[in-house]
Amino acid sequence: MRIKLVGVVAPAARLDPVIADRVRLQAGDMDDGPHLLVHPQCHLSDGHFAGDDEARERAFLDVANDPHFDALWIARGGYGSCRIAERVLSQLNNYAREKVYLGYSDAGFLLAGLYAKGCRVAHGPMMADLARPGGEAAIQRALDWLNTADAATLEPSLRPGVPAVAFNMVVLSHLLGTSLEPDLSDHVLMLEEVSEYLYAIDRTMFHLTAHPAIQRVAGIRLGRVSDILPNDPDFARSEEDIVQDWCARAKIPYLGRADIGHDADNKIVPFGGIPG
Amino acid sequence: MRIKLVGVVAPAARLDPVIADRVRLQAGDMDDGPHLLVHPQCHLSDGHFAGDDEARERAFLDVANDPHFDALWIARGGYGSCRIAERVLSQLNNYAREKVYLGYSDAGFLLAGLYAKGCRVAHGPMMADLARPGGEAAIQRALDWLNTADAATLEPSLRPGVPAVAFNMVVLSHLLGTSLEPDLSDHVLMLEEVSEYLYAIDRTMFHLTAHPAIQRVAGIRLGRVSDILPNDPDFARSEEDIVQDWCARAKIPYLGRADIGHDADNKIVPFGGIPG
Repeated sequence: MRIKLVGVVAPAARLDPVIADRVRLQAGDMDDGPHLLVHPQCHLSDGHFAGDDEARERAFLDVANDPHFDALWIARGGYGSCRIAERVLSQLNNYAREKVYLGYSDAGFLLAGLYAKGCRVAHGPMMADLARPGGEAAIQRALDWLNTADAATLEPSLRPGVPAVAFNMVVLSHLLGTSLEPDLSDHVLMLEEVSEYLYAIDRTMFHLTAHPAIQRVAGIRLGRVSDILPNDPDFARSEEDIVQDWCARAKIPYLGRADIGHDADNKIVPFGGIPG
Repeated sequence: MRIKLVGVVAPAARLDPVIADRVRLQAGDMDDGPHLLVHPQCHLSDGHFAGDDEARERAFLDVANDPHFDALWIARGGYGSCRIAERVLSQLNNYAREKVYLGYSDAGFLLAGLYAKGCRVAHGPMMADLARPGGEAAIQRALDWLNTADAATLEPSLRPGVPAVAFNMVVLSHLLGTSLEPDLSDHVLMLEEVSEYLYAIDRTMFHLTAHPAIQRVAGIRLGRVSDILPNDPDFARSEEDIVQDWCARAKIPYLGRADIGHDADNKIVPFGGIPG
């Protein structure tokens, strides 16, 4: 399916309208690129959120349930999608199941639940990534993937026929056991994190690897862990030491690094992997 | 059972020897109070931890599995008990099951698993609480409870025959679904937190209340949430608003406040409640 019309919604934090306009210009410069329709909800403001729970839920359903849209692109992370995820997922129609969903970070709550319901989901750049150093490349990667599923946009360790998913560590930890949890058996699980203490990453890796649902994955790959907060005293282990240690304890294969993270190099991971 | 000999171990962070000596003096001033034996492991240092995982595991088992000790008192929180909990729990002998265990915060990983195994566990002050403002009262409360199970030491909402437990929110969230998770059906669940952002508390309350195991509790009481980190933008909801909101969504009764927290007023909550 060629993606022509993309609806943009913000299930967590508000999107700066200037960023939205710049991304639309960038998409407009493409030959036959996708048309972006930014839902007005993206620019609402309600304290921490891009509008209250009801506004964010309604906007998500406006795009997801409308057959005119081929894809739903998450505008931005932050915090808030877990507050609407269960209600959104209970109201999806059949058009929602034929759509592509793209985002990462906090949006993982929604991506997890959408994948559990059989929707086509991918972990990759969001509109707000334009503001990062080198952000135009991240935006172009997302647009190219939406446009042609260009292989150059994909996380390079993906192999045809091998299912994969990608999550922010803390987000995955906080949805285990809830109705949002997808079956990750035999999947390569890619994990990334940002702005956490190493002790908290260690604690989250305990939770993930001690959980029977995660012990059934094919293996774990570690994406980038950026902006680590200073630990006092020094934690004396790197993020890769931590992940390798917990994988070894739980007898989960550690498969190496993944090219994902909270940065402009964040490659695309279609949930379920790429066709065999 | 009268508690005469208490073994003190530090499954997470190191205990200052001066604090240990002052608490032993305070216990020595009591008429017929418990004798405290502080395991030398409490003063080891290995980066973030009071000794490496093996030293902390061995010290815990030294006390738990020795019939001469009537109680095991956790010296201090911090981070680290999840790193040894599963190995400790797999090596407990029958003497360990006859003992009383007291602590809170990070120690919740161990208390949860001990309670799941049928041990006698309580949430209450630790040795390091002496350093808090008014800390001598917290220490005296712990000693009095160990000594005579004095009713004045107990969290005041406890009712005979109604099972109860108490946890740090983030710790409970991070053990759900693992082998450490006890059956909390029909329990009053008391929750407290310290040094977190309100958005992170909201996210943790999503995880707890969206989890079927927590949906089976009799109700939730909110202890103190102290040293909340500044949220930008303002979260616009108090900690009690957050807990009431998530309880209402999950149809879990919200029962009001609990007299527990990271402070010297932290009252004692015997897991399972008080005798009917």
